[in-house]
Amino acid sequence: MEKNVSFKRKISSRAIRGSALLPIRGFKLGPGTTAEELLAAYSSIGFQASHLGKAAEVVKRMQDGKATIFLAFTSNMVSCGLREIIAQLCERKLVHAIITSTGSIEEDVMKCSAPFVLGSFTADDIEVKANGMNRIGNIFVKDEQYADFEKLHLAFMEEMHAKHKGKMCMSEYVKELGARLTDKNSFLYWCSRNSIPVFLPGPLDGAMGDHFYFFNKSHAKQPFVIDAAEEVRRFYDIMLLADSTAGIILGGGIAKHHLIGAAILRNGLDYAVYLSTGTEGDGSLSGARPREAVSWNKLKREEDSAFVEGDATLTFPLLVLSMVSREK
Amino acid sequence: MEKNVSFKRKISSRAIRGSALLPIRGFKLGPGTTAEELLAAYSSIGFQASHLGKAAEVVKRMQDGKATIFLAFTSNMVSCGLREIIAQLCERKLVHAIITSTGSIEEDVMKCSAPFVLGSFTADDIEVKANGMNRIGNIFVKDEQYADFEKLHLAFMEEMHAKHKGKMCMSEYVKELGARLTDKNSFLYWCSRNSIPVFLPGPLDGAMGDHFYFFNKSHAKQPFVIDAAEEVRRFYDIMLLADSTAGIILGGGIAKHHLIGAAILRNGLDYAVYLSTGTEGDGSLSGARPREAVSWNKLKREEDSAFVEGDATLTFPLLVLSMVSREK
Amino acid sequence: MEKNVSFKRKISSRAIRGSALLPIRGFKLGPGTTAEELLAAYSSIGFQASHLGKAAEVVKRMQDGKATIFLAFTSNMVSCGLREIIAQLCERKLVHAIITSTGSIEEDVMKCSAPFVLGSFTADDIEVKANGMNRIGNIFVKDEQYADFEKLHLAFMEEMHAKHKGKMCMSEYVKELGARLTDKNSFLYWCSRNSIPVFLPGPLDGAMGDHFYFFNKSHAKQPFVIDAAEEVRRFYDIMLLADSTAGIILGGGIAKHHLIGAAILRNGLDYAVYLSTGTEGDGSLSGARPREAVSWNKLKREEDSAFVEGDATLTFPLLVLSMVSREK
Amino acid sequence: MEKNVSFKRKISSRAIRGSALLPIRGFKLGPGTTAEELLAAYSSIGFQASHLGKAAEVVKRMQDGKATIFLAFTSNMVSCGLREIIAQLCERKLVHAIITSTGSIEEDVMKCSAPFVLGSFTADDIEVKANGMNRIGNIFVKDEQYADFEKLHLAFMEEMHAKHKGKMCMSEYVKELGARLTDKNSFLYWCSRNSIPVFLPGPLDGAMGDHFYFFNKSHAKQPFVIDAAEEVRRFYDIMLLADSTAGIILGGGIAKHHLIGAAILRNGLDYAVYLSTGTEGDGSLSGARPREAVSWNKLKREEDSAFVEGDATLTFPLLVLSMVSREK
Repeated sequence: MEKNVSFKRKISSRAIRGSALLPIRGFKLGPGTTAEELLAAYSSIGFQASHLGKAAEVVKRMQDGKATIFLAFTSNMVSCGLREIIAQLCERKLVHAIITSTGSIEEDVMKCSAPFVLGSFTADDIEVKANGMNRIGNIFVKDEQYADFEKLHLAFMEEMHAKHKGKMCMSEYVKELGARLTDKNSFLYWCSRNSIPVFLPGPLDGAMGDHFYFFNKSHAKQPFVIDAAEEVRRFYDIMLLADSTAGIILGGGIAKHHLIGAAILRNGLDYAVYLSTGTEGDGSLSGARPREAVSWNKLKREEDSAFVEGDATLTFPLLVLSMVSREK
Repeated sequence: MEKNVSFKRKISSRAIRGSALLPIRGFKLGPGTTAEELLAAYSSIGFQASHLGKAAEVVKRMQDGKATIFLAFTSNMVSCGLREIIAQLCERKLVHAIITSTGSIEEDVMKCSAPFVLGSFTADDIEVKANGMNRIGNIFVKDEQYADFEKLHLAFMEEMHAKHKGKMCMSEYVKELGARLTDKNSFLYWCSRNSIPVFLPGPLDGAMGDHFYFFNKSHAKQPFVIDAAEEVRRFYDIMLLADSTAGIILGGGIAKHHLIGAAILRNGLDYAVYLSTGTEGDGSLSGARPREAVSWNKLKREEDSAFVEGDATLTFPLLVLSMVSREK
Repeated sequence: MEKNVSFKRKISSRAIRGSALLPIRGFKLGPGTTAEELLAAYSSIGFQASHLGKAAEVVKRMQDGKATIFLAFTSNMVSCGLREIIAQLCERKLVHAIITSTGSIEEDVMKCSAPFVLGSFTADDIEVKANGMNRIGNIFVKDEQYADFEKLHLAFMEEMHAKHKGKMCMSEYVKELGARLTDKNSFLYWCSRNSIPVFLPGPLDGAMGDHFYFFNKSHAKQPFVIDAAEEVRRFYDIMLLADSTAGIILGGGIAKHHLIGAAILRNGLDYAVYLSTGTEGDGSLSGARPREAVSWNKLKREEDSAFVEGDATLTFPLLVLSMVSREK
Repeated sequence: MEKNVSFKRKISSRAIRGSALLPIRGFKLGPGTTAEELLAAYSSIGFQASHLGKAAEVVKRMQDGKATIFLAFTSNMVSCGLREIIAQLCERKLVHAIITSTGSIEEDVMKCSAPFVLGSFTADDIEVKANGMNRIGNIFVKDEQYADFEKLHLAFMEEMHAKHKGKMCMSEYVKELGARLTDKNSFLYWCSRNSIPVFLPGPLDGAMGDHFYFFNKSHAKQPFVIDAAEEVRRFYDIMLLADSTAGIILGGGIAKHHLIGAAILRNGLDYAVYLSTGTEGDGSLSGARPREAVSWNKLKREEDSAFVEGDATLTFPLLVLSMVSREK
């Protein structure tokens, strides 16, 4: 008894006749090949290389179409060296709004003082801890970087609490925070200066959550209110007023969902590029392909999207080089 | 030039001498094998089956140790049939607090009226949409289920806005919502009745975010404030006051991070079981193993944890059967 | 410029109308639930649980249809406790031919003398080696088990070389080997006794390759010839003469490919179940789904197949219990 | 009862003191960045980008150390555009022996006449078939390309059967085949001309297996014998006589295992780079990291290895550019 017969695919063979399919082939190797040349060659290699080539095409359409580009990413993108690459996108105003998680804020600020360092995925974690460090994949961050951040952040929180009379939303809070930074490698530095809003749909997760907890324990009379509804208002206003919209999405989680979920209200993003290691088979939003987004009105047309399966550290630098190469 | 020499592992060969390692072997097949027998046999099969066997052992320790058990999960766990299994855990008070995302709330409520249905991962998404449905992996949900939820939720929001004078935190909001449900297959139904708090670190994501957006557009004078700081206060109070703590974590994302991140303040969870498809190599929190949590003080000892790689729909039912089988 | 327009899916909406889609729902928990009950419930859970439920259905069709069932697996399935489960399938004659790799032969024989043991994926491999062991995921095997196998195998090779005048194919060789075993937990033991041929498309890989190398170095005058063409003849004869054919495929690699590739000559398998962790996105045969096999005539109809994503140690025992439960 | 205590890692904290860990940071974007510059920058990005940077370092050591470089790959690497990149490595004699599967031979020969084309992973496979094509991930190959190959191959087989008196090993056979090709984009063309042996541990899998089956059916008196033992002799002679050895391994399967397995006889490869999507958690050889190879004496030291998780189409072109850039 086979009940799930739904939506079988049936295709007219017209589809193939007359269409000129792209031949698969490698490219001529040579020292001095530029990254743009490499990426151009990727389209005809097949598998994920072709997906990356397609992603570059879709990003070009976003830029040519003057779409409002939303960049969504998980915080590990800031833990690694993509932080400085994101910062350059913000400096050049090549993206127009950011959706991310609190970890990205914390780590961007911490890195203004000292870098994280390269470790190993298979380090002994007891030993990592014994050395006053914490592990994020193959990256180590020191306890004292968290302690320094806490100090800085508690003072900032006090200042904000007073200035904003104990009530803010997170994009407002983060904008004030970025304005106080001086590191040009910080994406928050550039977002504040270039009026690129940074939205946090999970507003008080992680260390910042800890700080708010203790702050409010000691300010019981006038606790600091962080208004999630106001955050939604500001994000949706941009989403709904844009002429056309595009998403570049690194990883999964709430940043990805918040972006594409909001796009339903305007019948979907016009363009989307996902760079992700997520797997489809568990039905997670993190692993869902652009195809699935079409069923939801999260994305208008699958043709205007690309999914590149793989760690974004391998693929995002190439994609950003293609964006930058189009600047005159 | 090999700079990342850090934390090399060096082991005394004492470790192996004298220890009695468990032999790998299968088990005797027979009709009528119970799920508990099967799970017991899994420990000696190796690979992920052994991890699932270990997970059952760790869950037993949680229960024997009377730990406060936090259940964290992504919303696809409610999209699928794990919803009713989670509901039974809540009915039996086998978990003590929940951390999840807004999608879980929306879908649990929707399912009180009508089920989702089994589709296919490879359905044509244009056709899915054309039939008034939306796809979550191989599960379909109808547009009208969202429309019905919106109607129900807008009325509820209006009621809450009045009753709570326009300011709430999400666990409070969700408790009120659950109290109005009548479906015993709903986990919110049982959480409200059994005082199991449901925390939403990403408070207004998804459809509920949409509803708040429009509600506040039409209530500009007294917008509904959703206080994320108050939510943190309530969650951390439980985390910090518990005698001992345990996490059962399905999937990744903010639910996972919020749980293990908060545990840092008490030097880590005492027990943790992760059921996940996440991959370690991208440095994501979603893919991070319990090992990594040890470096952060998110988990006390790796020995009291298990990671089972694989879709939770395959493994969680077995694990829950083992929890239930220990009830007298 | 979008060249790869090929084979777009277009579906009549008739597909959905009138069809009764299976509702998604969990099941009632209780101690004493049998594994068969559990598996029956899996169909309506969604995601991979539904795929496992489907796999059980397809296996039932194989059995009801009296198909010739080919079991293909990688050697790690023998490293772990699935070895004894495979042996029970062979004892009960529930499978009719096996395609695997040489590692499976080596390890099945070794385990007749002593078990492998449960270790850990994150063991220090230098230390594992220093303790005279080797690691297969989280399973350890001793050097001396290889040394014992070498001794046994060299004597056997000498005997076969004489008996078969220096020329054999591997399925013949393995049949003789199995006939000399006395461990009823060995699948080779049962294959030899029950005339279930074991085909090795990669005939002299691994330790057995080493042994043949040294044997032939010292028998330069009459080297032992292992004829791969004769192996193909024997395997294809079975494939082509069967009334109907089915594949149960654990993992990927050459065992999988050899089975489904040969099926092209009869326009495809009638039934196929894949249990695998393979990923589709790299275009590998190991990760290819049954769907892809349809384009090649490796499989007749996608409807008569299932793909369960996940480690086979989690899923194969359940599937085999369902096969066994149907024996009267 | 926790039996699997084996081989716990314990590290002196000396390891961290005094060592200068590499800072994590991105790099300056600019049009005209060469692929070598990009790859150099990858080392300090973290996650898989750092692994790719490390892979380039290890390949440099292979080249500087004048190691005998074995290139192992699965046949999908030839299906895609990596074929031409491999051909250029062979033309430049940058690799010294190849281990692969029969599919690589078949497809390299087919592509001498006509390219494969770019399709889509989600094409309707019934329609692909109806259009006389077959799908390999997102690559399509025509039935007629297989028919043409069959014609060519049957004639070649007849010729070889006569010339070699009905008995050969596959590397010998493939060398003769490559010598008859005229396409400079073929890796077999260059292997034959540059005396780079191509070993096939799974000698008669796939279409070539079919052809041998039918050939021998019609040559029952003097069947064509393909000697797997002779193949092993030739491969092991190179492995054992080399001064130092290195492996570059794309994907998993028998090609990977055959290479690293044979290396045990010389206490392991001196250098190894794996580019793979394989997952460790299922205990498969395909997913095993270089770390595991150390326990087996398949690899001398983990320090001289790298594992880059991801589809090789994304990473191998960059790695090869780094190899080529070092030629004067």
